[in-house]
Amino acid sequence: LSDQFTELRERLALIHDVEKAAAVLSWDEETKMPPSGAEARAEQRATLNRIAHELSTAPELGQLLEDLRPFEDEHPFDSFEASLVRVARRDYEKAVRVPPSLRAEMTRSGSLGYQAWLRAREQEDYGIMLPHLERNLELRRQYVACFEPAGDPYDIVLDDYEPGMKTAEVVEIFDALKAALLPWLGSVSDLEPIDDSCLTGRFPRDAQRRFSQFVLERWGMDRAAWRLDKTVHPFATSFAPTDIRLTTNFHEDSLHGILSCLHEFGHGIYERQVDPAYARTPLAQGVSSAFHESQSRMWENLVGRNIATWRFFYPRLQEEFPEQFGDIQLETFHRALNKVHPSFRRVDADEVTYCLHIILRFELERQMLSGALALKDLPEAFNAKMAEYLGLNPPDVVAGVLQDVHWSDMTMGYFPTYALGNVVSVQLWEKAEAELGELDEHFERGEFEPLREWLRENVHRHGRAFTPQELLKRVTGSAMDPAPYLRYLERKLGELFGAAVA
Amino acid sequence: LSDQFTELRERLALIHDVEKAAAVLSWDEETKMPPSGAEARAEQRATLNRIAHELSTAPELGQLLEDLRPFEDEHPFDSFEASLVRVARRDYEKAVRVPPSLRAEMTRSGSLGYQAWLRAREQEDYGIMLPHLERNLELRRQYVACFEPAGDPYDIVLDDYEPGMKTAEVVEIFDALKAALLPWLGSVSDLEPIDDSCLTGRFPRDAQRRFSQFVLERWGMDRAAWRLDKTVHPFATSFAPTDIRLTTNFHEDSLHGILSCLHEFGHGIYERQVDPAYARTPLAQGVSSAFHESQSRMWENLVGRNIATWRFFYPRLQEEFPEQFGDIQLETFHRALNKVHPSFRRVDADEVTYCLHIILRFELERQMLSGALALKDLPEAFNAKMAEYLGLNPPDVVAGVLQDVHWSDMTMGYFPTYALGNVVSVQLWEKAEAELGELDEHFERGEFEPLREWLRENVHRHGRAFTPQELLKRVTGSAMDPAPYLRYLERKLGELFGAAVA
Repeated sequence: LSDQFTELRERLALIHDVEKAAAVLSWDEETKMPPSGAEARAEQRATLNRIAHELSTAPELGQLLEDLRPFEDEHPFDSFEASLVRVARRDYEKAVRVPPSLRAEMTRSGSLGYQAWLRAREQEDYGIMLPHLERNLELRRQYVACFEPAGDPYDIVLDDYEPGMKTAEVVEIFDALKAALLPWLGSVSDLEPIDDSCLTGRFPRDAQRRFSQFVLERWGMDRAAWRLDKTVHPFATSFAPTDIRLTTNFHEDSLHGILSCLHEFGHGIYERQVDPAYARTPLAQGVSSAFHESQSRMWENLVGRNIATWRFFYPRLQEEFPEQFGDIQLETFHRALNKVHPSFRRVDADEVTYCLHIILRFELERQMLSGALALKDLPEAFNAKMAEYLGLNPPDVVAGVLQDVHWSDMTMGYFPTYALGNVVSVQLWEKAEAELGELDEHFERGEFEPLREWLRENVHRHGRAFTPQELLKRVTGSAMDPAPYLRYLERKLGELFGAAVA
Repeated sequence: LSDQFTELRERLALIHDVEKAAAVLSWDEETKMPPSGAEARAEQRATLNRIAHELSTAPELGQLLEDLRPFEDEHPFDSFEASLVRVARRDYEKAVRVPPSLRAEMTRSGSLGYQAWLRAREQEDYGIMLPHLERNLELRRQYVACFEPAGDPYDIVLDDYEPGMKTAEVVEIFDALKAALLPWLGSVSDLEPIDDSCLTGRFPRDAQRRFSQFVLERWGMDRAAWRLDKTVHPFATSFAPTDIRLTTNFHEDSLHGILSCLHEFGHGIYERQVDPAYARTPLAQGVSSAFHESQSRMWENLVGRNIATWRFFYPRLQEEFPEQFGDIQLETFHRALNKVHPSFRRVDADEVTYCLHIILRFELERQMLSGALALKDLPEAFNAKMAEYLGLNPPDVVAGVLQDVHWSDMTMGYFPTYALGNVVSVQLWEKAEAELGELDEHFERGEFEPLREWLRENVHRHGRAFTPQELLKRVTGSAMDPAPYLRYLERKLGELFGAAVA
């Protein structure tokens, strides 16, 4: 059996290599590739995906996983051996459910949907998108049917990003969030808005890059294993725990590029700190979208919008942008960075409104998948929820239903994990503080190693060895729970606005 | 049969995609990858190579190529269809000759040889290299034996880089080169050396990059399809005719980085101008190493060290480096650029001594492969030939036998193609001038399109559709012939040194 385990490792290593090679091709495409290389690149990526899929669904792999059941039982649940067999079997069983022809058609139709989305935005015309949405939704339903869903069909799409989580659990968490966030937003809206004019101006890109590098290196980005490159839409990716790629986009007129660095660092450090023994296995990555997002939001928000952190970094920021911040008090800057204000774009949203943007999308996705909402009525339904939750009326479809790329191929189940990431981030944070003491005291001295090492030990190193639920339980003793996040927000709002809000 | 041709194209496209994906991984490794990513990257590349090899030697591919013989016969020799089947069959027949186990062992042992080469250079100790050379030579001989050579075993290794060429032909050409070059070098050595002190100084990297971009764009590098990046050892690669990557290495104290850009441009434009209809087929690349090198040397030397070219570019060079070249006459700069002077390093050699560096390596390779030269005696044999051909005694093994990477895995057959590239470059050049008139008249006006388009039409677009011999015959009506190259050099030496030399 140990020979068969060796063979399993070899097969999984091949799959892993091909998937990581495809990731290199994507990274190059988004950061370096000259534009006319796009067509050939699409073919190359499709070929690698096809090969990875063939290797992932090989009957010999299935047989091996069957044969290794006794081997798995012999090893402790949390051993490398048992975890690898268990996770590989789950991946295999999901992969073989979907016929290659449907996968290929979803990829093809998704590309067409993406092109249509670009055109529809350009012409501010949802009608261009509609037939593609119809087709992609039809394919998404066929995909769901492959898994013969017993309960809510949305469970199937959610499982691709948050394995094991049920739609009903998401609904419960989101209802709790809405119940608190909507009244808070109402109270904030009655107040004088925070003055964030210090964040408007001219910020030379070189200085933004230097400052970002300074923060990231202080946080733990080492140049032997990381890169930071320019792209259009920032993302993080990794080709191995020893090769982490962050990307960002610095604009002269705002600091968003710096904040996106802080966000992507969270994704990067998660992949960086996976147990090196998991290299070239399916265990060597973050366990779920919500967990991944918990890390990016923790570093962006809990660390990155924290006044203690800025006590350490603000003098350096003033040095890089003396005209802009030379005369601005730390407290003024910090308040500006934490302004609460409803806005159309999800990606620009603050910590209070962000979850509302997500919840409205989740609710619409469920209605689209079930058929309760016809796609032709989506723009109106979108705007109605924007009005209800955020008090905003999008002036056009670009500020409304066409703002995100996710629906161009009817990707579903992904959006909710963004908000769940917020929820998980504070559950982990409370536990870290319980064990490490007040983190702010470390941060104001520029010490981020205690938090980073705590995350390595408790979360990162485990990769995908446990399910998200198992992992969260191991670390916090609890299931996913919105209470810590709401406590955190309530405290923060109190600090920013006083008793008027929280 | 046309269905089978379609299937053939699909199989070949997959192989091509995987090979190009591997090329992306290599490019990233040499230009962008953080150092700690090396180990994982080696695994990823090995996996892609293994997959490409399995696809390339699939029995179904062999059967398809057999079945398509009548289809090939139905189509004209120079049609896309017949060329594709013919070239794919030749590739297949070579690929299946070598057992995967031998290939894997050569790769593994080659890597170890490369590591040993680095250590041997560091410690200036050939002994560190010797056991690896022995092992790699043994494997190289096993490789040759796979092809059951009837004639000179060196024919087999030569064929990997210069398909169809025989060792005896190389010997004949090299003997003719030696007969002319050695006396010329003797005459030049008796003269006052050319003063090239203007090429020493401080050349800011940014200015070198701007100037290189200016030249390359004038030559035909468009930003939609090309990139220029930094690396340690310059190279060119392509991921499609629409995605060309040049690399260089600018040093503050020399202009070598600019010259390497001119060299790599020749490789790049060859791949750029392959017929777009050949995309994703084995026809979509340069036909041989000598042909590829003919293009890089044409743009580096025939165009790039030509006074007519510099009549156009020199004012811009003076602008970028005013302190260095402000007071230097064009003619002085041009003579410095063409200094003839024996030196230890092949890669720094001028147009007269370059071929001698190559010839000595070729002669040693033949002796190593046949066993006439024992590897323990290689350093002395290398130095003896350096003394005989170049009048130099390398002070250590780094300046001597360990200077090139090629022998670290006993790669053989590659070196001669560098010199053959010189030979081919002038054969093509003479033909181009016969059809286009004096190229210098175009160059001094900054017009490089006539030459570039002539090369597209006559050489580049054909990719690998014809053998190197067929292609050269189609273009020039002749076999490979050193006479044009020698005529060119004689004329140039006459211009530089007057009647004293040529």
